[in-house]
Amino acid sequence: MNTPRSGCPINLTLETLGDRWSLIVIRDLMFGNRRHFRELLTRSEERIASNILADRLARLEKAGLVSRRDYPAHKQKVIYSLTEASIALVPLLTPMGGWGLRHTPASEELSIRAKILEDGGPRLWSGFMEELRHLHLDAPAPKHSVFARLEAAQRGATVKHKSLPQNPGQSRAAAV
Amino acid sequence: MNTPRSGCPINLTLETLGDRWSLIVIRDLMFGNRRHFRELLTRSEERIASNILADRLARLEKAGLVSRRDYPAHKQKVIYSLTEASIALVPLLTPMGGWGLRHTPASEELSIRAKILEDGGPRLWSGFMEELRHLHLDAPAPKHSVFARLEAAQRGATVKHKSLPQNPGQSRAAAV
Repeated sequence: MNTPRSGCPINLTLETLGDRWSLIVIRDLMFGNRRHFRELLTRSEERIASNILADRLARLEKAGLVSRRDYPAHKQKVIYSLTEASIALVPLLTPMGGWGLRHTPASEELSIRAKILEDGGPRLWSGFMEELRHLHLDAPAPKHSVFARLEAAQRGATVKHKSLPQNPGQSRAAAV
Repeated sequence: MNTPRSGCPINLTLETLGDRWSLIVIRDLMFGNRRHFRELLTRSEERIASNILADRLARLEKAGLVSRRDYPAHKQKVIYSLTEASIALVPLLTPMGGWGLRHTPASEELSIRAKILEDGGPRLWSGFMEELRHLHLDAPAPKHSVFARLEAAQRGATVKHKSLPQNPGQSRAAAV
């Protein structure tokens, strides 16, 4: 961030986060657990451009919202992680998803996780944040995995979405 | 919004809100009750440029987040209002302020309202939203004014900030 335009905490948050692509990258690290450049690039629902991704990762690292380290065991040598400051964005990204559910034409398939997180409220968010600290900051694993629950629901919704005309009963069960 | 890049509710929220200046304008309508172009321009802490303000107000109106109407009693004939959709951003802007309090060099003077809103939690937010519906959508006035409380605290903080070296006791009382 250059010299901030004001000391207002909302303005400073917006200046620190940068543009919407920065938050899209944080979303993919956070909810998609995409940790390598190639994953972030090729799995992007919004088809982020390679130069934008590289630029935003560098900016986020500079702002202390992303850390990068070498990971020699993996063929892609660099792994990106969230930091305590970006994990603290869960209570901000979650209502962002909740607002989108009600005020934009969000697809059912991509909304299931936002709905679960919103319905779960602050208690579920802190469980999710605990798990993010485990995945990104090497903290101990929490007892219950919110991530697994979100992923299962997401898979269920995808199955439901794809198979609804053929076999709605079975896939509805999977989506619960 | 043009054709959205994905159906993800977080992405759609970000695409609908646009860039940070749009949220700064919503913040000033919401927390500053600045309803006229000139007020939004001249009182801007971030010194928003006139062409950016005009552009963002037009975009927000198109997105259904701001409405404009004639107001013949006022010498500035146009009054801008929040809509139900932008009033629903309170639970998103409030944690944005809260994050800024902890992770950016926010000024004490401009942080007092963010702190009260964060500490008050969802119950205070809905009181504030009820009052915004009164101010912007002609709904009945709520029993208690959250707005007056925020304004008083803000004034207290300003007094405290300015007079602290001379007379800390008195101004501290005003800030509570």
